Amino acid sequence: MDSVKIIEIKKSVFEDNDRAAEALRGELKRKGVYLLNLMSAPGSGKTTTLIQTINLLKDKIRIAVMEADIDSDVDAIKIKAATGVDSIQLHTGGMCHLDAEMTAQGLAGLKPTSDSSLKGREDNYDLIILENVGNLVCPAEFDTGAVKNAMILSVPEGHDKPLKYPLMFSVCDMVVINKMDVMPYFDFDLEKCNEYIHMRNPKAQVIPICAKTGENVEAFANWLLDEVRQWQNS
Amino acid sequence: MDSVKIIEIKKSVFEDNDRAAEALRGELKRKGVYLLNLMSAPGSGKTTTLIQTINLLKDKIRIAVMEADIDSDVDAIKIKAATGVDSIQLHTGGMCHLDAEMTAQGLAGLKPTSDSSLKGREDNYDLIILENVGNLVCPAEFDTGAVKNAMILSVPEGHDKPLKYPLMFSVCDMVVINKMDVMPYFDFDLEKCNEYIHMRNPKAQVIPICAKTGENVEAFANWLLDEVRQWQNS
Repeated sequence: MDSVKIIEIKKSVFEDNDRAAEALRGELKRKGVYLLNLMSAPGSGKTTTLIQTINLLKDKIRIAVMEADIDSDVDAIKIKAATGVDSIQLHTGGMCHLDAEMTAQGLAGLKPTSDSSLKGREDNYDLIILENVGNLVCPAEFDTGAVKNAMILSVPEGHDKPLKYPLMFSVCDMVVINKMDVMPYFDFDLEKCNEYIHMRNPKAQVIPICAKTGENVEAFANWLLDEVRQWQNS
Repeated sequence: MDSVKIIEIKKSVFEDNDRAAEALRGELKRKGVYLLNLMSAPGSGKTTTLIQTINLLKDKIRIAVMEADIDSDVDAIKIKAATGVDSIQLHTGGMCHLDAEMTAQGLAGLKPTSDSSLKGREDNYDLIILENVGNLVCPAEFDTGAVKNAMILSVPEGHDKPLKYPLMFSVCDMVVINKMDVMPYFDFDLEKCNEYIHMRNPKAQVIPICAKTGENVEAFANWLLDEVRQWQNS
């Protein structure tokens, strides 16, 4: 095997927002709200996966979605139209990720549900899903205050992604492998992918799905429902 | 159509590295070196496209590659093994993009070619390709000092990406659409994609290819060769 020169060009410095994230998580715990931070590369199918998942869960728990994007609002509109749940768009103004403060601003902006007997804002929901900016690098660096991080890796991206984006796979306890329907057309090795994911995070759960057809999305929805109930009852 | 609430959560502040980038570009111009900044989302096929392109060009011009990655070295090794051209890996230490200073550090680290009659470092090459970190957000914000920016969008990512990552498409004069072989399996509208790309950058050139089979990579290689010759002769 050839060897190549490696140059360490810069150690990065990231703002420490851990305290704000911990405080936000504590507040959500008191209110019984489960916040999921969903991450992925662009075009991996976050929005389609969310629509399918929400439609499986919306009669069981109260759900809202915060769609983070640089400046479009196509995802929030799509989610609202396809599921009927409360959905807001967070514009990051060019920022490539969300931190805990930005997440808190989003939560404060969530409208009360149509049920007027409920008071407050985000405490009207059992589950709030934050769809982070499509990016495998920066969002992994910042704790948003979510209870758990989940990510979607799609088959066309390749099974080597855990090798190239180590932190993203380290911080996610749930890895959804999407676009399983196109497996025959790509050199994607699911076994190797599983191995690489568990190199990064031995306790990560991996669920292969096809969001387009809905195949196996129930497995992800069931995991999420269990998570919410454990969070509310612990 | 449903409308949704939009919250502007933060205006970002990016370090202005334009002056350093201009200086670097001036230096490269004096040396007759063309630097291409190649960007894309994770898994779009940058490395495979580069290998095919380099193999078409390496007998005509002197080429080197700088592979930026967070911490793996798989791409630099792959490029060197498959093409024989000089290839180094730049580790960004967690950073999600390269700026002009980091690019200059990479250029300074490029080894002389095996031709010992050539002196200096990067001035041994006609073309240096910087494969940026796989990310559609942050790399677009920072001028690396490259002569041109090019990007790869792969079919599985979807034709709506210019709507969602506006800056990336604005700063790229060349958009390569990769993985054309899997068009039948995805809802990808090439006409709409072209329209959205030109909304962002009216002068962008769009070249559909399949890097895996090599189909139409020649069109991209020819564009690049013309670019290098114009840069050296203007």
